[in-house]
Amino acid sequence: MLGRMRAVTIPEHGGPEVLTLAEVPDPVPGPDEIRVRVAHSALNRADTLQRMGGYPDPVQREFEIPGLEYAGTVEAVGERVTAWSVGDRVMGIESGACYAELVVTHERQALPVPAGLDLADAAAVPEVFLTAWDALVVQGGLTSGRWALVHAGASGVGTAGIQIAKAIGARIAVTCSTGKMQACSTLGADIVLERSPHDWAGELSGLVPGGVDVVLDVIGGEEADRNLRSVRRQGTIVQVGLMGGGTTSVNLGLLLTKRIHWVGTTLRMRPLEQKIAVCQRFIAEVLPLFEAGALHPVIDSRFPLDRVADAHRHMEADANIGKILLDLTGN
Amino acid sequence: MLGRMRAVTIPEHGGPEVLTLAEVPDPVPGPDEIRVRVAHSALNRADTLQRMGGYPDPVQREFEIPGLEYAGTVEAVGERVTAWSVGDRVMGIESGACYAELVVTHERQALPVPAGLDLADAAAVPEVFLTAWDALVVQGGLTSGRWALVHAGASGVGTAGIQIAKAIGARIAVTCSTGKMQACSTLGADIVLERSPHDWAGELSGLVPGGVDVVLDVIGGEEADRNLRSVRRQGTIVQVGLMGGGTTSVNLGLLLTKRIHWVGTTLRMRPLEQKIAVCQRFIAEVLPLFEAGALHPVIDSRFPLDRVADAHRHMEADANIGKILLDLTGN
Repeated sequence: MLGRMRAVTIPEHGGPEVLTLAEVPDPVPGPDEIRVRVAHSALNRADTLQRMGGYPDPVQREFEIPGLEYAGTVEAVGERVTAWSVGDRVMGIESGACYAELVVTHERQALPVPAGLDLADAAAVPEVFLTAWDALVVQGGLTSGRWALVHAGASGVGTAGIQIAKAIGARIAVTCSTGKMQACSTLGADIVLERSPHDWAGELSGLVPGGVDVVLDVIGGEEADRNLRSVRRQGTIVQVGLMGGGTTSVNLGLLLTKRIHWVGTTLRMRPLEQKIAVCQRFIAEVLPLFEAGALHPVIDSRFPLDRVADAHRHMEADANIGKILLDLTGN
Repeated sequence: MLGRMRAVTIPEHGGPEVLTLAEVPDPVPGPDEIRVRVAHSALNRADTLQRMGGYPDPVQREFEIPGLEYAGTVEAVGERVTAWSVGDRVMGIESGACYAELVVTHERQALPVPAGLDLADAAAVPEVFLTAWDALVVQGGLTSGRWALVHAGASGVGTAGIQIAKAIGARIAVTCSTGKMQACSTLGADIVLERSPHDWAGELSGLVPGGVDVVLDVIGGEEADRNLRSVRRQGTIVQVGLMGGGTTSVNLGLLLTKRIHWVGTTLRMRPLEQKIAVCQRFIAEVLPLFEAGALHPVIDSRFPLDRVADAHRHMEADANIGKILLDLTGN
């Protein structure tokens, strides 16, 4: 009965070489769901963690398929779906299974691809722009005039964060490696700091007296204590990742006396109703900024599906500026 | 021109013996302020820290006078004051200078003493009930049905927290030393756990599967990591103190994957408008619970002003259950 699609599976956990192209059963949409023929997916750090066995998909699936985002066209709709028709261009986030030719999603979790954005570029949007906007604006309360600090400024989330901050009239400082500082400036960052072990916190304190309003941190580790030093009184630190390590020593005296809000967040672990809520608000508040030309996906490179292991190696070499895409249109 | 009042001063920082009774100039109310003849003040941990030089009053004063709360009667009002008349019974929080016969405060920061509450007991209310309610309800979002965890259950903040949780239909677990467990049960705590180094977090996880909704922590130190283990997904940890130490090692992986909110807070460091806002909301939401008989100040002991050093020694011996009051009515 069921058709079969190509997907990247993880038969066992390990290095990039474990990623295996396979034929698996097509996913079947429920009555409120749509099925999308995926044009492109994109890599996220979570995918490499999942591949190594460290960050499992919260959804149990017959085959373990990585991939948190997609862009494509609606191929089938469930019987109660009203928002979409076959052929519509959509993009979105999932908890997994997007390195695949077909993705099934709730109709209210899918995002329309903004007019003027090529489908080949749209897969670079959902995860990093949702993450950066949710962290900076929704959870961090970033507004015009206020200061954000974003680590890994040249990463997918970093490049999205710089653009979002500038588009809403906020100011932004970023940290990154020496070789990526020019790219961050070109994107519009007001202050570009060399990352640790350079004492960026000391440098920043001279440039933004009183501290920044919100920190978006994907690093953790030794940056945690520097974040506490760098945020202003009653500021917010949004912890989005822990690429630099999770167990660390911190000075809670700063948390207390500055009345800091330190918030952990992931999109992936949220229940359906919370994902829908953030996606609907994103449609209203952020997608118009793409149509207005204020936001652009930053794309580092594209790999065909059968070179997915190379794509992972490229991400783990930490040399990318912006997103690494996976092309599913080839045969 | 100015009269002089008795107050406890800190001529130099150190042990309880540095506390010195002195005659200092009466404070003068501004146009929006009232002057209160203090009947009682009360001790807080912050006072002992301030005495040792570790937690300065954010307000610069001619004489360093400790004391964060008072109860008394209005003795004089500024020219624009409309809320109070001479003779009214008031209580309230200040950033310092309450170990004194006279206190000056903004008219909207003062709280009415609830009907039925003796002025001799009212000084045991403001700091701990405001702190516990603000932490649990305002910042922690505690509601009926939800679970709170409060450390130092027999402390002033702990005894207030237990009563507030029960009064709003919430459930509460506390930690305390062995000798204070019965007192916490009597006040209404649903679960009473022996404090660290006992593995209270392991015990609690068996009793509240999924974790508690909000943690009120005055300890910090080694409890920080146990708090992260004990709070549910999307729960809140409100850090109110660091009696157990401020620099500590924590597992940020739990902050991230459980999407925890970790919030530092103090009443003392807030600007005027924020203190007024929390006091006005407290008047509307909490003071009626005193008049209804659902909340009662828990008083450990009373010391006359000239025995203030003994009062500090008593607090530092960590043997009190509830508040230690300072009586300023004597001559």
